[in-house]
Amino acid sequence: MLKYETVDYDKENNALVILDQTKLPGEISYISLTDTEDIREAIYLLKVRGAPAIGVAAAFGLAAVSKRIEANTPEVFFEELNKRKEIINAARPTAVNLSWALERMMRVCENELPRAREAGAEGISCLTECLVKEALRMKEEDIAVCRKIGENGLTLLKQGDGILTHCNAGGLATCRYGTATAPVYIGQEQGYDFHVYADETRPLLQGARLTAFELQAAGVDVTLLCDNMAASLMVKGKIQAVLVGCDRVAANGDTANKIGTSGVAILANYYHIPFYVCAPFSTIDFQTETGKDIPIEERNADEVTTLWYKEKMTADGVKVYNPAFDVTDHSLITAFITERGIIAPDDLKKMDV
Amino acid sequence: MLKYETVDYDKENNALVILDQTKLPGEISYISLTDTEDIREAIYLLKVRGAPAIGVAAAFGLAAVSKRIEANTPEVFFEELNKRKEIINAARPTAVNLSWALERMMRVCENELPRAREAGAEGISCLTECLVKEALRMKEEDIAVCRKIGENGLTLLKQGDGILTHCNAGGLATCRYGTATAPVYIGQEQGYDFHVYADETRPLLQGARLTAFELQAAGVDVTLLCDNMAASLMVKGKIQAVLVGCDRVAANGDTANKIGTSGVAILANYYHIPFYVCAPFSTIDFQTETGKDIPIEERNADEVTTLWYKEKMTADGVKVYNPAFDVTDHSLITAFITERGIIAPDDLKKMDV
Repeated sequence: MLKYETVDYDKENNALVILDQTKLPGEISYISLTDTEDIREAIYLLKVRGAPAIGVAAAFGLAAVSKRIEANTPEVFFEELNKRKEIINAARPTAVNLSWALERMMRVCENELPRAREAGAEGISCLTECLVKEALRMKEEDIAVCRKIGENGLTLLKQGDGILTHCNAGGLATCRYGTATAPVYIGQEQGYDFHVYADETRPLLQGARLTAFELQAAGVDVTLLCDNMAASLMVKGKIQAVLVGCDRVAANGDTANKIGTSGVAILANYYHIPFYVCAPFSTIDFQTETGKDIPIEERNADEVTTLWYKEKMTADGVKVYNPAFDVTDHSLITAFITERGIIAPDDLKKMDV
Repeated sequence: MLKYETVDYDKENNALVILDQTKLPGEISYISLTDTEDIREAIYLLKVRGAPAIGVAAAFGLAAVSKRIEANTPEVFFEELNKRKEIINAARPTAVNLSWALERMMRVCENELPRAREAGAEGISCLTECLVKEALRMKEEDIAVCRKIGENGLTLLKQGDGILTHCNAGGLATCRYGTATAPVYIGQEQGYDFHVYADETRPLLQGARLTAFELQAAGVDVTLLCDNMAASLMVKGKIQAVLVGCDRVAANGDTANKIGTSGVAILANYYHIPFYVCAPFSTIDFQTETGKDIPIEERNADEVTTLWYKEKMTADGVKVYNPAFDVTDHSLITAFITERGIIAPDDLKKMDV
């Protein structure tokens, strides 16, 4: 199990507390955030990242800033809260969890408005308490959902399997078990000896800096490889399953995830290795018909030209292609592993009830 | 055309001169080598790299060290030369060109032994002159062979094509035109407007540091991408052909090249994009039956854990998988582009005459 707390709420100081993931693995450093703009920036700069963790961080963040709103009436409070929500929501476009979590927080607040009005002077603190409670509930739900994904995923794996993963859909991307790593952590509890292979995941190296780090810290056997080495492992028979997370699943099963995921899926398909997408049900976006409708974030060239923001390693002015995500066609996905069970891509639509 | 000289021989000082490729693209720095161990180390440390360039550099290197051998007779000279050859030959195992070039130099020297014996006091300088001439001839041959590969390859391409390449099989990997880049450079002379996409090629970033650099310097339209972004370009229809070089081709067409090549071939196969291996005929090793018989060099973990040898970016002690090459199955190769023409993998064996 993940040894570190990814996202938390400091009740004494009413602050969002995150493990700064840009400092990992060299430094375990927590930062405390209470300002709307700081929270938006922390998400944009990937200090907290991973679709589920972003959702919970945004919820805690909104709760923290709600405590600092100066308003005379619940209505003014709600209006002010909504402005802050919009700022945080603009941080990143691809993952559906950010807007999903913020909308849920706003809805809870809205539902509480009549009671707040009746409470008079105490009305606003009643709203803020309600927001804190909802965010805490979302964290608990995330832990439970990921654990269930782990239990379901484990039924597809065998003792000693070699498992390839891409990017970090690990504990650090959620509140405890991760999505793609959940079957690994639950398997570890039950004595499965998995060999995990972690793609380093250029340009921002989430696999090298985060996945290899958290699995190693948890005592899981993990080997780091460059993204272009996966086929070489597969042809040697070292990989029995690919497990990845996702940022958004369209209604037809097309899946947006970290750039490089679709390539891994094509390799797995070629070598007849099952390719599983681990997804909390909230990541399935039934409003989005196919992968073509998912917006793909394009990020700065210097993420590619300058290694981990330090050392320039290309000639000046070189053109760069740097999409943050790609879409894996549903035909390449063996199944989705969710908290509600294992779902084949073609059966996804039946679940939209 | 490549703007820089990759490998040369300094006749005045009898030295191998190489452009130090570990300093690129930040610094254009030439180093002069005359010592056997320094030459071996320069090849091992990739100061000169690329199968054809390594071959010519080893030949010039052997010529340079031959000038410093102290021997009383041609036989003693030959014996001493052979010891130095063995040291240089041990630098890297996968590319066939290194041993091919050194064997050719030794054979020339051996053939000259009778004449050297007759020449008396002048005999040894007659041998060393003969070695220098042979090495210079190999450089001229390399330039002519690559130019012919370019002309042959160009017949497979169309105006405006998008071309993906992996690693650096460019001018910097040879003496002028490169192998995979030769059709691009010859196309440029003839007014083709190609769009080249260069995989950065982790761990040592030859695509980012070398291919993007040399094509940009030559005025070719080039865009850099991380290795895991290739599928995302292919699905968008941006790639009409993949051109790569190779380190060794087995008799059945299985091809060893920079790690990641086989993955690109699988992606191209999936998207029905032709995949061409550009190879001087000397790279085809008819003694090696299939790819399984090609030794694959495994390199140090710190190439992966420490970005470009500067910044540690993983937790301490993490296990690493770091093969320098992989083997692309012949079934994934559309054709070999050689100086003798375009050859389908299945027709390769007919050429062994």
